[in-house]
Amino acid sequence: MMRRILGIDPGSIKTGWGVIEAEGGSFTHLESGILRLGTGEMSGRLLILHRGLCDVIERLKPSECAVEEIFLAKNFQSVLKLGQARGVALLSAGAASIPVREFAAKTVKQAICGQGQASKTQMQNMVIRILGLAENPGEDAADALGIALCAGYSKDGVGADARFRLSSRSRAGTRWRLKES
Amino acid sequence: MMRRILGIDPGSIKTGWGVIEAEGGSFTHLESGILRLGTGEMSGRLLILHRGLCDVIERLKPSECAVEEIFLAKNFQSVLKLGQARGVALLSAGAASIPVREFAAKTVKQAICGQGQASKTQMQNMVIRILGLAENPGEDAADALGIALCAGYSKDGVGADARFRLSSRSRAGTRWRLKES
Repeated sequence: MMRRILGIDPGSIKTGWGVIEAEGGSFTHLESGILRLGTGEMSGRLLILHRGLCDVIERLKPSECAVEEIFLAKNFQSVLKLGQARGVALLSAGAASIPVREFAAKTVKQAICGQGQASKTQMQNMVIRILGLAENPGEDAADALGIALCAGYSKDGVGADARFRLSSRSRAGTRWRLKES
Repeated sequence: MMRRILGIDPGSIKTGWGVIEAEGGSFTHLESGILRLGTGEMSGRLLILHRGLCDVIERLKPSECAVEEIFLAKNFQSVLKLGQARGVALLSAGAASIPVREFAAKTVKQAICGQGQASKTQMQNMVIRILGLAENPGEDAADALGIALCAGYSKDGVGADARFRLSSRSRAGTRWRLKES
Protein backbone atom coordinates (compact mmCIF):
# COMPACT_ATOMS: atom_id res chain seq x y z
CA MET A 1 0.00 0.00 0.00
CA MET A 2 1.35 3.37 -0.95
CA ARG A 3 1.51 5.89 1.87
CA ARG A 4 2.04 9.60 1.54
CA ILE A 5 3.72 11.02 4.63
CA LEU A 6 4.09 14.64 5.71
CA GLY A 7 6.98 15.26 8.11
CA ILE A 8 7.04 18.54 10.02
CA ASP A 9 9.90 20.14 11.94
CA PRO A 10 8.10 22.98 13.73
CA GLY A 11 9.78 26.21 14.80
CA SER A 12 8.51 29.69 15.62
CA ILE A 13 10.85 31.43 13.15
CA LYS A 14 10.88 28.81 10.42
CA THR A 15 9.22 25.43 10.04
CA GLY A 16 10.52 22.68 7.78
CA TRP A 17 8.19 20.31 6.00
CA GLY A 18 8.57 17.45 3.57
CA VAL A 19 6.28 15.00 1.85
CA ILE A 20 7.42 11.55 0.74
CA GLU A 21 5.75 8.51 -0.73
CA ALA A 22 6.51 5.19 0.93
CA GLU A 23 5.77 1.84 -0.61
CA GLY A 24 7.25 -1.39 0.68
CA GLY A 25 10.56 0.04 1.87
CA SER A 26 10.92 2.28 -1.20
CA PHE A 27 10.77 6.06 -0.73
CA THR A 28 10.18 8.91 -3.15
CA HIS A 29 10.59 12.58 -2.40
CA LEU A 30 7.52 14.53 -3.50
CA GLU A 31 8.12 18.04 -2.25
CA SER A 32 9.70 19.82 0.70
CA GLY A 33 10.32 23.33 1.86
CA ILE A 34 10.70 25.82 4.65
CA LEU A 35 7.96 28.14 5.86
CA ARG A 36 9.53 31.39 7.00
CA LEU A 37 7.34 32.92 9.67
CA GLY A 38 9.20 36.21 10.04
CA THR A 39 9.76 38.02 13.29
CA GLY A 40 6.47 39.89 13.72
CA GLU A 41 3.62 39.34 16.20
CA MET A 42 3.37 35.69 17.24
CA SER A 43 -0.29 35.38 16.22
CA GLY A 44 0.61 36.58 12.70
CA ARG A 45 3.56 34.17 12.50
CA LEU A 46 1.39 31.26 13.57
CA LEU A 47 -1.16 32.25 10.94
CA ILE A 48 1.55 32.09 8.23
CA LEU A 49 2.48 28.64 9.57
CA HIS A 50 -1.11 27.39 9.62
CA ARG A 51 -1.88 28.67 6.13
CA GLY A 52 1.37 27.29 4.76
CA LEU A 53 0.76 23.82 6.18
CA CYS A 54 -2.90 23.82 5.15
CA ASP A 55 -1.79 24.69 1.61
CA VAL A 56 0.73 21.81 1.58
CA ILE A 57 -1.91 19.41 2.94
CA GLU A 58 -4.51 20.52 0.42
CA ARG A 59 -2.13 20.27 -2.55
CA LEU A 60 -0.31 17.06 -1.68
CA LYS A 61 -2.97 15.27 0.34
CA PRO A 62 -0.76 13.29 2.74
CA SER A 63 -2.38 10.25 4.34
CA GLU A 64 -0.42 10.65 7.57
CA CYS A 65 1.76 13.12 9.41
CA ALA A 66 4.82 12.81 11.64
CA VAL A 67 6.47 15.24 14.06
CA GLU A 68 9.41 14.90 16.39
CA GLU A 69 8.82 14.48 20.11
CA ILE A 70 10.46 17.21 22.13
CA PHE A 71 12.43 16.51 25.27
CA LEU A 72 15.08 19.17 25.27
CA ALA A 73 15.23 22.91 24.73
CA LYS A 74 17.49 25.80 25.61
CA ASN A 75 15.17 27.45 28.10
CA PHE A 76 11.60 28.06 29.18
CA GLN A 77 10.82 30.65 26.53
CA SER A 78 12.17 28.46 23.73
CA VAL A 79 10.00 25.50 24.84
CA LEU A 80 6.98 27.79 24.97
CA LYS A 81 7.62 29.16 21.46
CA LEU A 82 8.34 25.72 20.10
CA GLY A 83 5.16 24.45 21.74
CA GLN A 84 3.14 27.21 20.11
CA ALA A 85 4.42 26.36 16.63
CA ARG A 86 4.01 22.66 17.33
CA GLY A 87 0.41 23.17 18.46
CA VAL A 88 -0.41 24.91 15.20
CA ALA A 89 1.29 22.11 13.23
CA LEU A 90 -0.74 19.44 15.06
CA LEU A 91 -3.90 21.47 14.54
CA SER A 92 -3.24 21.83 10.81
CA ALA A 93 -3.01 18.04 10.46
CA GLY A 94 -5.98 17.49 12.78
CA ALA A 95 -8.15 19.93 10.82
CA ALA A 96 -7.64 17.75 7.72
CA SER A 97 -8.31 14.56 9.75
CA ILE A 98 -4.76 13.32 9.13
CA PRO A 99 -3.43 11.02 11.86
CA VAL A 100 -0.28 12.35 13.52
CA ARG A 101 2.49 10.23 15.01
CA GLU A 102 5.36 11.44 17.15
CA PHE A 103 8.88 10.07 17.10
CA ALA A 104 11.72 10.72 19.50
CA ALA A 105 14.75 12.39 17.86
CA LYS A 106 16.78 9.32 18.79
CA THR A 107 14.32 7.05 16.99
CA VAL A 108 14.52 9.21 13.87
CA LYS A 109 18.33 9.14 13.90
CA GLN A 110 18.31 5.40 14.53
CA ALA A 111 15.99 4.81 11.58
CA ILE A 112 17.88 7.07 9.16
CA CYS A 113 21.51 6.65 10.22
CA GLY A 114 21.41 3.39 12.14
CA GLN A 115 22.49 5.07 15.35
CA GLY A 116 20.70 7.33 17.81
CA GLN A 117 23.73 9.59 18.33
CA ALA A 118 24.14 10.65 14.68
CA SER A 119 24.96 14.32 14.07
CA LYS A 120 22.67 16.72 12.23
CA THR A 121 25.00 16.67 9.22
CA GLN A 122 25.05 12.86 9.10
CA MET A 123 21.25 12.86 9.25
CA GLN A 124 20.92 15.36 6.44
CA ASN A 125 23.41 13.53 4.24
CA MET A 126 21.55 10.26 4.74
CA VAL A 127 18.19 11.86 3.98
CA ILE A 128 19.63 13.27 0.75
CA ARG A 129 21.06 9.86 -0.21
CA ILE A 130 17.97 7.83 0.73
CA LEU A 131 15.70 10.11 -1.27
CA GLY A 132 18.24 10.62 -4.06
CA LEU A 133 17.96 14.40 -3.85
CA ALA A 134 20.06 16.42 -6.29
CA GLU A 135 20.76 19.04 -3.62
CA ASN A 136 20.39 19.78 0.08
CA PRO A 137 16.81 20.96 0.67
CA GLY A 138 17.92 23.05 3.66
CA GLU A 139 18.41 21.99 7.26
CA ASP A 140 14.80 22.30 8.44
CA ALA A 141 13.35 20.64 5.34
CA ALA A 142 15.90 17.80 5.60
CA ASP A 143 14.95 17.29 9.25
CA ALA A 144 11.27 17.16 8.28
CA LEU A 145 12.03 14.63 5.54
CA GLY A 146 13.97 12.57 8.08
CA ILE A 147 10.93 12.46 10.36
CA ALA A 148 8.72 11.48 7.41
CA LEU A 149 11.19 8.69 6.48
CA CYS A 150 11.20 7.45 10.06
CA ALA A 151 7.39 7.22 9.95
CA GLY A 152 7.74 5.46 6.59
CA TYR A 153 9.98 2.77 8.05
CA SER A 154 8.00 2.32 11.21
CA LYS A 155 4.77 1.04 9.76
CA ASP A 156 6.24 -1.55 7.39
CA GLY A 157 6.46 -3.97 10.24
CA VAL A 158 10.20 -3.33 10.53
CA GLY A 159 9.96 -0.88 13.40
CA ALA A 160 11.52 2.57 13.41
CA ASP A 161 14.25 1.50 15.77
CA ALA A 162 15.57 -1.26 13.54
CA ARG A 163 18.88 -0.75 11.81
CA PHE A 164 18.83 -0.43 8.06
CA ARG A 165 21.47 -0.67 5.43
CA LEU A 166 21.27 0.67 1.92
CA SER A 167 20.94 -2.02 -0.72
CA SER A 168 22.28 0.07 -3.56
CA ARG A 169 24.89 2.79 -4.01
CA SER A 170 24.14 6.48 -3.75
CA ARG A 171 23.06 8.03 -7.01
CA ALA A 172 20.81 11.06 -7.53
CA GLY A 173 17.37 9.89 -8.49
CA THR A 174 17.83 6.39 -7.05
CA ARG A 175 14.90 5.03 -5.15
CA TRP A 176 16.62 3.46 -2.21
CA ARG A 177 15.46 0.05 -1.19
CA LEU A 178 16.25 -0.60 2.41
CA LYS A 179 16.82 -3.93 4.05
CA GLU A 180 17.14 -4.80 7.67
CA SER A 181 20.75 -5.59 8.43
CA MET B 1 -15.13 54.25 22.54
CA MET B 2 -16.63 50.89 23.33
CA ARG B 3 -14.21 47.97 23.17
CA ARG B 4 -15.11 44.32 23.15
CA ILE B 5 -12.34 42.21 24.67
CA LEU B 6 -11.83 38.45 24.53
CA GLY B 7 -9.68 37.06 27.35
CA ILE B 8 -8.29 33.55 26.98
CA ASP B 9 -6.77 31.28 29.62
CA PRO B 10 -5.33 28.47 27.45
CA GLY B 11 -4.82 24.92 28.65
CA SER B 12 -4.46 21.58 26.89
CA ILE B 13 -7.29 19.92 28.88
CA LYS B 14 -9.59 22.90 29.24
CA THR B 15 -9.39 26.49 28.10
CA GLY B 16 -11.28 29.34 29.73
CA TRP B 17 -12.57 32.27 27.74
CA GLY B 18 -14.56 35.39 28.48
CA VAL B 19 -15.80 38.38 26.53
CA ILE B 20 -16.44 41.77 28.14
CA GLU B 21 -17.35 45.19 26.90
CA ALA B 22 -15.26 48.07 28.20
CA GLU B 23 -16.25 51.70 27.95
CA GLY B 24 -14.58 54.46 29.93
CA GLY B 25 -13.76 52.37 33.00
CA SER B 26 -17.12 50.61 32.94
CA PHE B 27 -17.24 46.89 32.23
CA THR B 28 -20.01 44.54 31.17
CA HIS B 29 -19.85 40.76 31.03
CA LEU B 30 -21.07 39.48 27.68
CA GLU B 31 -20.38 35.78 27.79
CA SER B 32 -17.82 33.36 29.17
CA GLY B 33 -17.23 29.65 29.29
CA ILE B 34 -14.85 26.73 29.36
CA LEU B 35 -13.85 24.67 26.33
CA ARG B 36 -13.28 21.09 27.42
CA LEU B 37 -10.76 19.49 25.09
CA GLY B 38 -10.99 15.95 26.46
CA THR B 39 -8.05 13.60 26.80
CA GLY B 40 -7.75 12.20 23.27
CA GLU B 41 -5.07 12.76 20.62
CA MET B 42 -3.49 16.20 20.96
CA SER B 43 -4.27 17.19 17.35
CA GLY B 44 -7.96 16.43 17.96
CA ARG B 45 -7.95 18.38 21.23
CA LEU B 46 -6.36 21.39 19.57
CA LEU B 47 -8.98 21.20 16.83
CA ILE B 48 -11.76 21.38 19.46
CA LEU B 49 -9.99 24.40 20.94
CA HIS B 50 -9.58 26.13 17.57
CA ARG B 51 -13.19 25.53 16.53
CA GLY B 52 -14.49 26.61 19.91
CA LEU B 53 -12.55 29.88 19.88
CA CYS B 54 -13.39 30.57 16.23
CA ASP B 55 -17.05 30.10 17.11
CA VAL B 56 -16.79 32.56 20.02
CA ILE B 57 -14.97 35.07 17.81
CA GLU B 58 -17.50 34.76 15.00
CA ARG B 59 -20.49 35.12 17.32
CA LEU B 60 -19.26 37.85 19.63
CA LYS B 61 -16.88 39.70 17.30
CA PRO B 62 -14.32 40.94 19.86
CA SER B 63 -12.21 43.90 18.75
CA GLU B 64 -9.18 42.73 20.71
CA CYS B 65 -7.83 39.71 22.55
CA ALA B 66 -5.72 39.22 25.67
CA VAL B 67 -3.78 36.24 27.02
CA GLU B 68 -1.57 35.81 30.04
CA GLU B 69 2.19 35.74 29.61
CA ILE B 70 3.70 32.53 30.88
CA PHE B 71 6.83 32.45 33.02
CA LEU B 72 6.31 29.46 35.24
CA ALA B 73 5.21 25.87 34.81
CA LYS B 74 5.53 22.57 36.61
CA ASN B 75 7.87 20.91 34.14
CA PHE B 76 9.03 20.67 30.54
CA GLN B 77 6.06 18.64 29.32
CA SER B 78 3.57 21.01 30.90
CA VAL B 79 5.19 24.05 29.24
CA LEU B 80 5.12 22.24 25.91
CA LYS B 81 1.44 21.35 26.24
CA LEU B 82 0.57 24.81 27.46
CA GLY B 83 2.52 26.25 24.54
CA GLN B 84 0.62 24.10 22.08
CA ALA B 85 -2.76 25.27 23.38
CA ARG B 86 -1.52 28.85 23.55
CA GLY B 87 -0.29 28.69 19.95
CA VAL B 88 -3.73 27.60 18.78
CA ALA B 89 -5.36 30.39 20.83
CA LEU B 90 -3.06 33.02 19.28
CA LEU B 91 -3.71 31.57 15.83
CA SER B 92 -7.48 31.70 16.33
CA ALA B 93 -7.28 35.41 17.11
CA GLY B 94 -4.76 36.04 14.33
CA ALA B 95 -6.95 34.27 11.77
CA ALA B 96 -9.71 36.79 12.53
CA SER B 97 -7.22 39.70 12.40
CA ILE B 98 -7.82 40.50 16.06
CA PRO B 99 -4.85 42.13 17.80
CA VAL B 100 -3.55 40.12 20.75
CA ARG B 101 -1.90 41.57 23.84
CA GLU B 102 -0.10 39.65 26.56
CA PHE B 103 -0.12 40.49 30.24
CA ALA B 104 2.00 39.08 33.03
CA ALA B 105 0.00 37.27 35.73
CA LYS B 106 1.27 39.84 38.22
CA THR B 107 -0.06 42.68 36.07
CA VAL B 108 -3.48 41.01 35.86
CA LYS B 109 -3.62 40.55 39.65
CA GLN B 110 -2.46 44.10 40.21
CA ALA B 111 -5.15 45.46 37.91
CA ILE B 112 -7.97 43.33 39.37
CA CYS B 113 -7.06 43.08 43.06
CA GLY B 114 -4.67 46.00 43.49
CA GLN B 115 -1.79 43.71 44.41
CA GLY B 116 0.38 41.37 42.36
CA GLN B 117 0.40 38.67 45.05
CA ALA B 118 -3.38 38.12 45.18
CA SER B 119 -4.56 34.50 45.44
CA LYS B 120 -6.62 32.76 42.75
CA THR B 121 -9.69 32.94 44.99
CA GLN B 122 -9.26 36.68 45.60
CA MET B 123 -8.91 37.19 41.85
CA GLN B 124 -12.04 35.23 41.07
CA ASN B 125 -14.06 37.00 43.75
CA MET B 126 -12.99 40.37 42.41
CA VAL B 127 -13.82 39.41 38.82
CA ILE B 128 -17.28 38.33 39.97
CA ARG B 129 -17.79 41.61 41.85
CA ILE B 130 -16.42 43.88 39.13
CA LEU B 131 -18.62 42.30 36.48
CA GLY B 132 -21.58 41.86 38.86
CA LEU B 133 -21.92 38.17 38.00
CA ALA B 134 -24.74 36.28 39.73
CA GLU B 135 -22.52 33.22 40.10
CA ASN B 136 -18.96 31.96 39.72
CA PRO B 137 -18.38 31.22 36.02
CA GLY B 138 -15.77 28.55 36.87
CA GLU B 139 -12.09 28.97 37.62
CA ASP B 140 -10.78 29.00 34.02
CA ALA B 141 -13.52 31.32 32.77
CA ALA B 142 -12.97 33.68 35.72
CA ASP B 143 -9.24 33.76 34.96
CA ALA B 144 -9.99 34.55 31.31
CA LEU B 145 -12.36 37.35 32.36
CA GLY B 146 -9.65 38.69 34.66
CA ILE B 147 -7.24 38.89 31.73
CA ALA B 148 -9.90 40.62 29.62
CA LEU B 149 -10.52 43.13 32.45
CA CYS B 150 -6.78 43.80 32.73
CA ALA B 151 -6.70 44.59 29.01
CA GLY B 152 -9.76 46.77 29.53
CA TYR B 153 -8.03 48.86 32.16
CA SER B 154 -4.74 49.11 30.36
CA LYS B 155 -5.85 51.05 27.32
CA ASP B 156 -7.89 53.70 29.08
CA GLY B 157 -4.75 55.60 29.81
CA VAL B 158 -4.77 54.40 33.42
CA GLY B 159 -2.25 51.61 32.94
CA ALA B 160 -2.81 48.02 33.94
CA ASP B 161 -0.45 48.29 36.87
CA ALA B 162 -2.28 51.15 38.53
CA ARG B 163 -4.23 50.40 41.71
CA PHE B 164 -7.96 50.66 41.45
CA ARG B 165 -10.66 50.96 44.00
CA LEU B 166 -14.31 50.22 43.50
CA SER B 167 -16.48 53.31 43.46
CA SER B 168 -19.68 51.52 44.44
CA ARG B 169 -20.63 48.54 46.58
CA SER B 170 -20.91 45.00 45.25
CA ARG B 171 -24.33 44.19 43.85
CA ALA B 172 -25.17 41.62 41.17
CA GLY B 173 -25.77 43.42 37.91
CA THR B 174 -23.87 46.57 38.92
CA ARG B 175 -21.62 48.02 36.27
CA TRP B 176 -18.57 48.86 38.31
CA ARG B 177 -16.97 52.19 37.75
CA LEU B 178 -13.37 52.10 38.70
CA LYS B 179 -11.25 55.00 39.88
CA GLU B 180 -7.58 55.22 40.41
CA SER B 181 -6.89 55.37 44.14
